[in-house]
Amino acid sequence: MIKRIAPDVDVIDITHGIPPQHVLQGALVLANTLPYMPVGIHVAIVDPGVGSERKPVALRGGDGRVYLGPDNGLLLVAAEALGGVELAVELANEKYMLTPVSRTFHGRDIFSPAAAHLAAGVELEELGPPVEADALVRLELPRPQVGQARIRATALYVDRFGNIQLNLTSSDLERVGIVPGTKVEVEIRFERYFAVAARTFADVRPGDIVLYEDAYRNIALAINSGDAAHMFSARVGQEVLLSLA
Amino acid sequence: MIKRIAPDVDVIDITHGIPPQHVLQGALVLANTLPYMPVGIHVAIVDPGVGSERKPVALRGGDGRVYLGPDNGLLLVAAEALGGVELAVELANEKYMLTPVSRTFHGRDIFSPAAAHLAAGVELEELGPPVEADALVRLELPRPQVGQARIRATALYVDRFGNIQLNLTSSDLERVGIVPGTKVEVEIRFERYFAVAARTFADVRPGDIVLYEDAYRNIALAINSGDAAHMFSARVGQEVLLSLA
Amino acid sequence: MIKRIAPDVDVIDITHGIPPQHVLQGALVLANTLPYMPVGIHVAIVDPGVGSERKPVALRGGDGRVYLGPDNGLLLVAAEALGGVELAVELANEKYMLTPVSRTFHGRDIFSPAAAHLAAGVELEELGPPVEADALVRLELPRPQVGQARIRATALYVDRFGNIQLNLTSSDLERVGIVPGTKVEVEIRFERYFAVAARTFADVRPGDIVLYEDAYRNIALAINSGDAAHMFSARVGQEVLLSLA
Repeated sequence: MIKRIAPDVDVIDITHGIPPQHVLQGALVLANTLPYMPVGIHVAIVDPGVGSERKPVALRGGDGRVYLGPDNGLLLVAAEALGGVELAVELANEKYMLTPVSRTFHGRDIFSPAAAHLAAGVELEELGPPVEADALVRLELPRPQVGQARIRATALYVDRFGNIQLNLTSSDLERVGIVPGTKVEVEIRFERYFAVAARTFADVRPGDIVLYEDAYRNIALAINSGDAAHMFSARVGQEVLLSLA
Repeated sequence: MIKRIAPDVDVIDITHGIPPQHVLQGALVLANTLPYMPVGIHVAIVDPGVGSERKPVALRGGDGRVYLGPDNGLLLVAAEALGGVELAVELANEKYMLTPVSRTFHGRDIFSPAAAHLAAGVELEELGPPVEADALVRLELPRPQVGQARIRATALYVDRFGNIQLNLTSSDLERVGIVPGTKVEVEIRFERYFAVAARTFADVRPGDIVLYEDAYRNIALAINSGDAAHMFSARVGQEVLLSLA
Repeated sequence: MIKRIAPDVDVIDITHGIPPQHVLQGALVLANTLPYMPVGIHVAIVDPGVGSERKPVALRGGDGRVYLGPDNGLLLVAAEALGGVELAVELANEKYMLTPVSRTFHGRDIFSPAAAHLAAGVELEELGPPVEADALVRLELPRPQVGQARIRATALYVDRFGNIQLNLTSSDLERVGIVPGTKVEVEIRFERYFAVAARTFADVRPGDIVLYEDAYRNIALAINSGDAAHMFSARVGQEVLLSLA
């Protein structure tokens, strides 16, 4: 659809691998990835509410990026981390849609055409009426509970290597005294494991469980040369308890 | 291969996800997708007969599209829906192949080079001798049996959400009195379920089974926020019985 | 990352489907694929040692190709088959990295930026100090044992059709008298099967086991219209015994 409207535009696929309905995972992947992408027009669609009253929106961010997608929180984690929302509009102008619009495939009929028209020079304001940034739907990100010597964390994302991204940063770990080299007890699904905090996989032996800061500055749990998510039967949303061993 | 011959050509991947050997699924995805794609040179390869006597062909359609692929029916569902076949040729001119041609990878050795040469300006007639359009292999699409109050349908395609596309249109449903809002009994693999005909997922509750017109104007069976193919253990070719509940 | 540094460069993805940690599979796919690709700047990353002392390197090949990746053997199978290594450098110049460099994602922080800068005109010598080609890490490819009437081979690669590529060429088969048409006994995991050597799938019946020269001139084991890897429960590294039936 994009190439039909704007044949010369450069389309870069980040991923088609977000599991169906997982808006939070889509939001996290977008927020992790965009800082390394060229400033552009970013279309993101994980849209369980397609065909309902949820609005299709476009946002202009503080750094010049434009985001298009459903108003279900998918876009805001990235947009707020990258300079905030300067302008939001509802995609309502049928002139920039493929009509008749289907009830289940707004990626094809609304979001891609709007993105292509923007790339071809149409102004964001043309696409529809403004929406208050405060009225946009926000995701509730799970917050960790950080105690004296114990952290209750949540698995946010599992990558294709089976590494488990937690809702923690290294400063959370430091508050309970976990730094590179510390031995850590990990409890998942009522099973206990021993891990070591390390700077990278290469600091531990193959098969060791490692707690490390990943390439997006999130804390992740992994097995060197192994698949942690498979070994722990862990999925997104899983509670993970960490304490000093 | 295409970029070696025609470096400036724009290559758009529709999918690499057709299951091996499934010519009919490839044909349906092509027919569903092309109406939304730019007019271009379309290469499609699902080719269980590679290396046999089946011909490699190129077709020029009535709307200016060119199709390349094996003569096993893969291309014709799309081509006939989009203006018919104006000219068909057998890809026989070795000048436009990678020689020696392997026996198992004609995508690399025959179809992609021919497509690239066409994009670079070679005439279709140059690629080989004409083939009668009537002599091209056609797929037999399963036809539904529509009775007084009952429809015997077939699953044509399962998408990555687990939605099951049936060989039905909304006019088939109307003939037995199924319209949005109607309750429908669905029988699959000797199990019975209750579904509701609806305009979109959002019209039913999460977990409800829904019969709806999908974005390609085919009737599909889905579970709102669920995976229908998984729940029904349904695969392509599966018989599905629908009746008024 | 590449598009940020060199927006006009043409990026071609060969695959994102190499299983984690499988350096040998990555090396073989690269060596099989590159002869059919335009001469270019080739980035390949299967990198279990990321963050350790393993060097990030760039190599200039005899045919003008440039290879970037970890110094773990991944690049050399292809480079040595395509004209050898003319110059090797360690990627050490931080000017051409995304800093601070993460410990686990050198694809983003080292390899892609270096490739983009090369595409934009930076000289290979600029990226870091030279490395002796002889000092580069080499993979040990498993060698077949070819006896009087028996071959002990190893599965090198399994493609998405379930075809099993062996570490054999047709001249290995000829040494024990296996030519197209020969009946062959195949032993895998203590089970025996009967196969036939053939030029292509189309020469045998559906369901027959076939030993054939694949499109990369390697010998492969397949089932016509079936999935050999699934039927034999065979994985990469699996020993396969062939003898005259």
